[in-house]
Amino acid sequence: MADWIWYPGDFEIHQGMLQNCVREERGMRWPAYWYMDDCLRNVRLFREYDLMEETAFRVKICGIGYVRVNDEKHRCNEAIVCGPGKTLIEIFVANPEGLPCAYADGPVIRTGPDWSADDLAGNIGAAGTSCLYRSPEQDPNRIFYQEEQIPCACRREVNGGFLYDFGRAVTGKPHFLSFPAGTKVTVCYGESETEALDVERCYYKEDNADEHTEFSRRAFRYLYIPEKEGEKITLEAVHQFIPFPKRGTFRCSDERLNRIWETAEETFRLCCGLFILDGIKRDQWIWSGDAYQSFFVSQYLFGEEELVQRTLTALRGKDPVRQHMNTIVDYSMLWIVSVRNYYEMSGNLGFLEFIYPKMISLLEYCLEQTNDLGFLYGREGDWIFVDWADLDKEGCLCAEQALLAHSLRSVLECARALGRDASVYGKHLEKLSGNITRYFWDEEQGGFIDSYESGKRKISRQSNLWAVLFGAADEKQKDSILRNVIQNDAVAPITTPYFKYYELDALAEMGELEEVYRRILEYWGGMLDMGAVTFWEEFDPSQTGTEKYAMYGDPYGKSLCHAWAASPVYLLSRYFAGLYPTKPGYQEFGVRPEGIRILEEFSFVLPVRSGSVRIFWKKPCLSIFTDMPGGKLILGEKAFPLIPGKELKLEV
Amino acid sequence: MADWIWYPGDFEIHQGMLQNCVREERGMRWPAYWYMDDCLRNVRLFREYDLMEETAFRVKICGIGYVRVNDEKHRCNEAIVCGPGKTLIEIFVANPEGLPCAYADGPVIRTGPDWSADDLAGNIGAAGTSCLYRSPEQDPNRIFYQEEQIPCACRREVNGGFLYDFGRAVTGKPHFLSFPAGTKVTVCYGESETEALDVERCYYKEDNADEHTEFSRRAFRYLYIPEKEGEKITLEAVHQFIPFPKRGTFRCSDERLNRIWETAEETFRLCCGLFILDGIKRDQWIWSGDAYQSFFVSQYLFGEEELVQRTLTALRGKDPVRQHMNTIVDYSMLWIVSVRNYYEMSGNLGFLEFIYPKMISLLEYCLEQTNDLGFLYGREGDWIFVDWADLDKEGCLCAEQALLAHSLRSVLECARALGRDASVYGKHLEKLSGNITRYFWDEEQGGFIDSYESGKRKISRQSNLWAVLFGAADEKQKDSILRNVIQNDAVAPITTPYFKYYELDALAEMGELEEVYRRILEYWGGMLDMGAVTFWEEFDPSQTGTEKYAMYGDPYGKSLCHAWAASPVYLLSRYFAGLYPTKPGYQEFGVRPEGIRILEEFSFVLPVRSGSVRIFWKKPCLSIFTDMPGGKLILGEKAFPLIPGKELKLEV
Repeated sequence: MADWIWYPGDFEIHQGMLQNCVREERGMRWPAYWYMDDCLRNVRLFREYDLMEETAFRVKICGIGYVRVNDEKHRCNEAIVCGPGKTLIEIFVANPEGLPCAYADGPVIRTGPDWSADDLAGNIGAAGTSCLYRSPEQDPNRIFYQEEQIPCACRREVNGGFLYDFGRAVTGKPHFLSFPAGTKVTVCYGESETEALDVERCYYKEDNADEHTEFSRRAFRYLYIPEKEGEKITLEAVHQFIPFPKRGTFRCSDERLNRIWETAEETFRLCCGLFILDGIKRDQWIWSGDAYQSFFVSQYLFGEEELVQRTLTALRGKDPVRQHMNTIVDYSMLWIVSVRNYYEMSGNLGFLEFIYPKMISLLEYCLEQTNDLGFLYGREGDWIFVDWADLDKEGCLCAEQALLAHSLRSVLECARALGRDASVYGKHLEKLSGNITRYFWDEEQGGFIDSYESGKRKISRQSNLWAVLFGAADEKQKDSILRNVIQNDAVAPITTPYFKYYELDALAEMGELEEVYRRILEYWGGMLDMGAVTFWEEFDPSQTGTEKYAMYGDPYGKSLCHAWAASPVYLLSRYFAGLYPTKPGYQEFGVRPEGIRILEEFSFVLPVRSGSVRIFWKKPCLSIFTDMPGGKLILGEKAFPLIPGKELKLEV
Repeated sequence: MADWIWYPGDFEIHQGMLQNCVREERGMRWPAYWYMDDCLRNVRLFREYDLMEETAFRVKICGIGYVRVNDEKHRCNEAIVCGPGKTLIEIFVANPEGLPCAYADGPVIRTGPDWSADDLAGNIGAAGTSCLYRSPEQDPNRIFYQEEQIPCACRREVNGGFLYDFGRAVTGKPHFLSFPAGTKVTVCYGESETEALDVERCYYKEDNADEHTEFSRRAFRYLYIPEKEGEKITLEAVHQFIPFPKRGTFRCSDERLNRIWETAEETFRLCCGLFILDGIKRDQWIWSGDAYQSFFVSQYLFGEEELVQRTLTALRGKDPVRQHMNTIVDYSMLWIVSVRNYYEMSGNLGFLEFIYPKMISLLEYCLEQTNDLGFLYGREGDWIFVDWADLDKEGCLCAEQALLAHSLRSVLECARALGRDASVYGKHLEKLSGNITRYFWDEEQGGFIDSYESGKRKISRQSNLWAVLFGAADEKQKDSILRNVIQNDAVAPITTPYFKYYELDALAEMGELEEVYRRILEYWGGMLDMGAVTFWEEFDPSQTGTEKYAMYGDPYGKSLCHAWAASPVYLLSRYFAGLYPTKPGYQEFGVRPEGIRILEEFSFVLPVRSGSVRIFWKKPCLSIFTDMPGGKLILGEKAFPLIPGKELKLEV
């Protein structure tokens, strides 16, 4: 089987650009507000064969071009005969409107990752491929969604019109099963019933729809047809999705926790297409900060690599770096850390080889704005985000320095894996690390201050959480931060779900799993109590009326199916099951099932390389099974090797 | 009237990319073999108004997006009401497939060159516009050609099929006036009769054509339908072109010279579309070396600015520079010189302001490959072209250094016009200029040698012509070069029409106008004698059979309508009429009609700014009329001011 091939990264960059253009709001299209890279327009795709005998092949391209075989030109879409002997096959393809790509197929000659790609300006790399594009009938400029018919779960007459509830979130289209001839209706969409019924202000609306209307792919649970003609209409929803493997599962004795996992999984799957998106209704943009958190979920749920690679590649775009990722300085650095995390998870050196130069150019872009102390500062027009919170943002920020240090560490680790010299970054890290404690640590308050330049010596959870998670705090400092900052009600609480993730992760890492458990049940359980079928961008239990759908000053601005809300999958897998790689790609891995201290009973199946690890707990029996070598069970100070194919049973 | 607007340069770069993709050869599409830039995908177009009263406007875009008026979002294609007071209007538009652009129209609010454009990464400039796109019905992603019906001049039965001769070169499509229902025919195209009749090997062929076929725009003089059904077919040609003004005219007592001018004009007009192309049949690519020569023709023939601006902008593409222009080192430098020449011709500071940073980045790219002597050397993979000729190409070449010096001089001149500091280039020029004579001048041979590193001390016309034309030779050296190189039959002759241009230009500049006259009549007249209706890429009078259509190893590889063959228009205007600017934009200009030494009688009308200069000569009476101030007639040592609106008559 052959692959469609393209210039490395170009499929992801082109489709990512298209993705950042799909946002729609009340009849307006809303492209993302940052600089958008696109793929190359003109490339050469080539491979040399040493043919034993004469052979034939055929080339299909998206775009315009021709095939050159040992300097002789041939047309596409016709059988080309060549060999025996050394045969250089070059496909020249330009695509003025989209991704230039090619598919060559024959008994011997087939495009695949063993082909090379040339940008015609001296930059040659291994051709890009995707497991989603292996048929000549496809076109990598289009997305081929799988489809599923979703029947209407319930239809009700409301305000003289008709409301259809599908009982679940759908990303797709309405499909009329019967439609009164000659009429036109309005179709109003809603993630909530309230939104669908708000004919004026719902996000998506199709005016003058009939059975011939070509609907775009949109997210909804409810549809509302305000006209009385709705009575004669029957319809279903066509859900369009890219399927991902179900490799992570969880069950326990607590039905509420089971529903939280299932709803988190449902939420996450809906947010994953070619890329991991923030949510399904509103932006549908690729955000680095959101992706950073999502990668931890996909690691345990799908154990699938291409989705992460695609998201990382699309986010990063092309060189030169034109601006910070999504215009946010922290998001550039979170991306650098994400690459390291992905390598940790996958051990994929091929991808690392491809992405490493882009890590370096982005890191260099960040280092351009550092001072003599090694600190990163904000320049005119820079967006130093951290969180929507009242931080002391004067001068260099502690949170950014912790993240910069971790970015440097990430690059050093990747360089080591590739055998590259990155010692210049080691020196920067050394200087920076010392200065973080020197300038930001406040012994009296027992935590890191946001800014040393303002003189305010303000302590925030944000700065300290990043210091803990990104390795700026030593063990003693961590203890102090736990007591004096995180468990200190006088320090302003985290209010955004974006930072709630970091808080729970830090709490879990510092052993406060009971607290994590309590918060999961309260926050995510609270959404279930409100009837959520997917988890929301933000949840405030005190909002019980329609104000709960509002955000960013818009009555339906809140996304009700948001990727970062799926973090219970990560928290349970990483800390309750306790699975984590100790060598890149899970070549070695640990299982430290701290959840046995909290739950009476649970079972996890989680992906490890091409296999899995199964962890069963029914107090007091712990049983672990894996088909992959390299595993180790860790209980307190003790370690037990996991033998592939052999169940390890213990009484704890 | 409003203008379509876009990010500056993006229309030209996008359409230039499309232009470099139109080449077609025997059923294959052949995109140019270099790195192709494209326009931005996502831009913000904006302007602030201080509105006296409420006003309304409407926005049309190519792509997707919305309009923001003082922070409030609006849909496109709907009336938007705003004012009075300060009103910021921002149009956000992304175009995933083409050029993002917008057209706003209202009594007060109208898009135009007074709007700004933002690449969303901090780079803001004056919005781009074109006089070709001023109607809301247009789309700057399409070219709107003017059309002209060309009747078939003569139909003949040949080899059982039918040959249609249009008597002129056409860039357009066949149009069937009558067609036998239910049949399909083959349409073979030819610039020559021989090509059209060669059903197998002609460049363009449409198989299975009928009255519904959508033909692409192609160049031809002849069409051949090999099937007997051709008998029942009547057809015309639809010529598609962009009209350019006819501001330069020439007549004289020598009918042969008149026909040469007319045919050169016809040739040149055919090669000009959105851009100046090399030729109409084969490449149709935008080549810097060809454009360099063509700009001199357009200056006298059209006196039109946008065509030159479009060609310069498309050639240059975006920053960063990825490779030398058209992959050729000399072509990068010829482009830099062309910008200076264009400024000289137009005095257009707005365009210079826009293009200057791109001059600098390209010059810097060239200077990266210079050595301690200031000499430019070829790097691995660089194409140092100069000419298809047997030059001594070892080490640094004299021709390249002369061109580099002239590039530096060009940048210095442009910097001066803009009031920018470019002293660093002045220093480089000083060092380089001294070293050119020191290392390349051979006093004994009386000329510049190609290479000093090889030890061969070879003298070529090419090196010496560029030394003369690009200011590396002083007056004494020029005299010596004329005698010892150019008039020395022992030095290998120029064989390419590309360099014939430089030779004639140098001869004319050095006062050898009789020789230029003789060669024009011989070379261009020779093509007329062969029945040419347009001038060819190359002409060798010894080729009298079908071999005259061959080039580059292809039986029909020679372009029979090639822009660089139009140089008689330039040579006659520049030296025979003797018109040239002495201050940028012809604010001051000279007329030095050397042609009176050669021709008995002539009349020129040539463009000067928005007006013209008319030069009549009937031995011994010279009469000059201009409606523009700043002119001066120069006869030998004497100068006579030209008073606008007042004819100057002299007996010479």
